[in-house]
Amino acid sequence: MRRTSLKSATCPVARSLDVIGDWWSLLIVRDAFRGMRRFSQFQKSLGLARNILTTRLRGLVADGILETGPAADGSPYQDYVLTRKGCDLLPVLVALRHWGMKSFPDGAPWGSEVVDRESGHPVTCMELKTDDGRAVRPDAVEFRLAPGS
Amino acid sequence: MRRTSLKSATCPVARSLDVIGDWWSLLIVRDAFRGMRRFSQFQKSLGLARNILTTRLRGLVADGILETGPAADGSPYQDYVLTRKGCDLLPVLVALRHWGMKSFPDGAPWGSEVVDRESGHPVTCMELKTDDGRAVRPDAVEFRLAPGS
Repeated sequence: MRRTSLKSATCPVARSLDVIGDWWSLLIVRDAFRGMRRFSQFQKSLGLARNILTTRLRGLVADGILETGPAADGSPYQDYVLTRKGCDLLPVLVALRHWGMKSFPDGAPWGSEVVDRESGHPVTCMELKTDDGRAVRPDAVEFRLAPGS
Repeated sequence: MRRTSLKSATCPVARSLDVIGDWWSLLIVRDAFRGMRRFSQFQKSLGLARNILTTRLRGLVADGILETGPAADGSPYQDYVLTRKGCDLLPVLVALRHWGMKSFPDGAPWGSEVVDRESGHPVTCMELKTDDGRAVRPDAVEFRLAPGS
């Protein structure tokens, strides 16, 4: 079943979900952030059928989120690596992660962590800021239609 | 097609996607943030078939993201309102929104905005912070398996 397309939506959330709202696609991106590069690694991690994984990987490459290249280890396989656009998804994953940790306290201890590479300290907070640099609490934020739309 | 369940995943991203990774569900949550409360409002906004919207709304209520209540305007209809857990999804939507605005520059001017309710200033940035309160750039962050898992 092909979903309704949101390619011409005027909402950036809808446009984003049209590309990466698919459940498996974001998990592939998560695994790429964890350092996986190889078809077999994604398959083992996600337990996906080969044909479904192939379709998802192709979609992520077509959307410019992953790119393929020769294997870093010189083997004849292909590597899938996050592009700049793919790396820009980190805040989405971190926001989902924080929501999940808060919503499912029964899930701890979690099998993964997000840390500052240099200090090793865990990333525990995402602070929203306005264009004048001030921090704003989530409950002080309004999500609204733009004037005139 | 019922998807593989990730209800027992040890990754909070996977657990979150199991609940709200569905494309329509997050768009319903977006519309709830924009102030929509009524079945007919969601239907008009999303152009969804009644039976599909009904299923999605029920799922969001069952997962504790929306709750139903008597209509605020005293009419015999039912209102769907974000719970605390639902409101906690704001950073996910803001992160998706920022990614979408950057990834699809052709989409501007966008039909919606996220602002500080008090000052009216747009929310333009999400800053990642570690547990010791220091800001960390997204490219200095490592997403990794926890030691021992």
